[in-house]
Amino acid sequence: MTQSGTHSSAQSSAHSQDSRTLADVEEQELLDTVLPRFATSDDVIIGPGDDTALLRVRSGAALATTDTMVLGRDWLDEWSTGADVGHKLVVQNVADIAAMGGRCTGLLVTLVADQQTPLQWVADFTTGVADAARDAGTVVVGGDLSSAPAGTRVVSITAFGELDGVAAVLRSGARPGDLVAVCGTLGRAAAGLLLLQREHAAKGANLVLAQRRPRTPYEQGPVAARAGATAMLDISDGLLRDGGRIARASGVRLDLDPTALASDIRALTDAVGGADAETCVLTGGEEHSLLATFPAGAVPPGWRIIGVVAPGSGITVGGREHTRVGWDHFGSAKTD
Amino acid sequence: MTQSGTHSSAQSSAHSQDSRTLADVEEQELLDTVLPRFATSDDVIIGPGDDTALLRVRSGAALATTDTMVLGRDWLDEWSTGADVGHKLVVQNVADIAAMGGRCTGLLVTLVADQQTPLQWVADFTTGVADAARDAGTVVVGGDLSSAPAGTRVVSITAFGELDGVAAVLRSGARPGDLVAVCGTLGRAAAGLLLLQREHAAKGANLVLAQRRPRTPYEQGPVAARAGATAMLDISDGLLRDGGRIARASGVRLDLDPTALASDIRALTDAVGGADAETCVLTGGEEHSLLATFPAGAVPPGWRIIGVVAPGSGITVGGREHTRVGWDHFGSAKTD
Repeated sequence: MTQSGTHSSAQSSAHSQDSRTLADVEEQELLDTVLPRFATSDDVIIGPGDDTALLRVRSGAALATTDTMVLGRDWLDEWSTGADVGHKLVVQNVADIAAMGGRCTGLLVTLVADQQTPLQWVADFTTGVADAARDAGTVVVGGDLSSAPAGTRVVSITAFGELDGVAAVLRSGARPGDLVAVCGTLGRAAAGLLLLQREHAAKGANLVLAQRRPRTPYEQGPVAARAGATAMLDISDGLLRDGGRIARASGVRLDLDPTALASDIRALTDAVGGADAETCVLTGGEEHSLLATFPAGAVPPGWRIIGVVAPGSGITVGGREHTRVGWDHFGSAKTD
Repeated sequence: MTQSGTHSSAQSSAHSQDSRTLADVEEQELLDTVLPRFATSDDVIIGPGDDTALLRVRSGAALATTDTMVLGRDWLDEWSTGADVGHKLVVQNVADIAAMGGRCTGLLVTLVADQQTPLQWVADFTTGVADAARDAGTVVVGGDLSSAPAGTRVVSITAFGELDGVAAVLRSGARPGDLVAVCGTLGRAAAGLLLLQREHAAKGANLVLAQRRPRTPYEQGPVAARAGATAMLDISDGLLRDGGRIARASGVRLDLDPTALASDIRALTDAVGGADAETCVLTGGEEHSLLATFPAGAVPPGWRIIGVVAPGSGITVGGREHTRVGWDHFGSAKTD
């Protein structure tokens, strides 16, 4: 899901104390601003400042994933502060680690920004990353700063993790007879985006917050792995689309139970209306809740059963293929 | 060092067979184009296609580094093909692994590109990454594709590595009495950039190639570590600047011997003139040769002694601070 629109280099923070831009500071001063905001941990043997980081790996293998956000596509400065962007970028990446059953052990952070970028935006972004990393029990171990032509701002994180003795939960292990379960909310980030697009943010401040700062129940990734989850991912592109990925990778059909989703839809109806509420729940991305399949009887506490795994292919709702009404609210289906 | 100038989305390859752009293909077709070009290895337990990669780590710790290139700053399509960009991006990252004394075990590759990006450019970039990864004895284990507003193209790699039993060589271990040595060429990539800027590429095709596709003697990183190197990095921002980083981190002065650099300067003089040749050797970035300090008597074969470590601070040439003439050829000193 993307946030199409023009981009802006306007000051993003409501609490700016510093009107300088990146054009006004030397790289070392910028690093001196950024680096003290990052904590360290026992997993970090060598942190920022040398050619590479060196990260302890206790279990013989490291999980690694990377995700990027682009100004004007993945966020607008009018709608999200630098701290929001930093927070969301961490969540996107750590959710991928959790969705394998892993625990995040470190982050590399890249900032590509033009010289007009407010220094305060960089400070806010850094704070958002540092705070979200702490929430996720992880730390920043290094990164990269690059300048860019006017109008370009791209932020990227690579996250590392460990499995702590569980087997990685892939997308390909779902079997007919398994149950489909979700841990976390559905459709709230998409509903928040709709409210921002409609300039109705006041109708659902908590939904807008879910859009700006999604939350993943990270610790439930390893819980699901230990409980015997047969497939898992985090919902980044919508329940139907991501569920379809499990179906395709596993060679099965996922059939969602509409009655199990009714309360998710009801919770959004006042803010965005009934039809859009359903669309948000079924196709809304950027939620980063965990979606998994379990053998019957193995679904852990905190997870809600929302469907079953059947023979066949694709994803159905109440046995029928869904017509993805409203998909165009959220941008091109081509963008992941 | 950066390549300032306007950016272009013009077709970059001389051998285009396909005039489509990213706007014309679905993400899955793009992945189907990209992924088959990447090899796999014993180090890769889970490769591209799931939430994260899973990489074997035999030695209890993983090296990790990331580096980014931005269209219009770090390359121009007029001067570099997609394959050149892919090649250079791999070298930049793997050189950082080598400069710690490590061996690269895997790469995550990120492509952020607008819809006008030629599909052929993406194919060329992918081929360049795959070929350079093979040269470096490593493989692509995953990555990210993101769309961007018009005019934005950013490529990024995160490289992982292992130390295979040697201690990491930091920048901070140089001691007075050590020798300064280099493995690889000096100033050639910068001279190649000058020739491109002057539209004199024919005066030094091999220098232009060094700019487009720098080469790092990767295997000499672990060799230096085993030989007892006390500090090491790769020359990405110029001999004086990167040498100065070792000096600062180690709390010493590096004194370079001008007679030891004379042959490097002579080798460039015909192509760019004597004054610029000296500037290229002393301040030219993007060379990605290895610079290290060793205790006297420990410099391994294949390395050239170019100076000594002395008490004090900073970097000198023949005992005197150098006036960095010509630095402005290569862009703002602020950009790393």
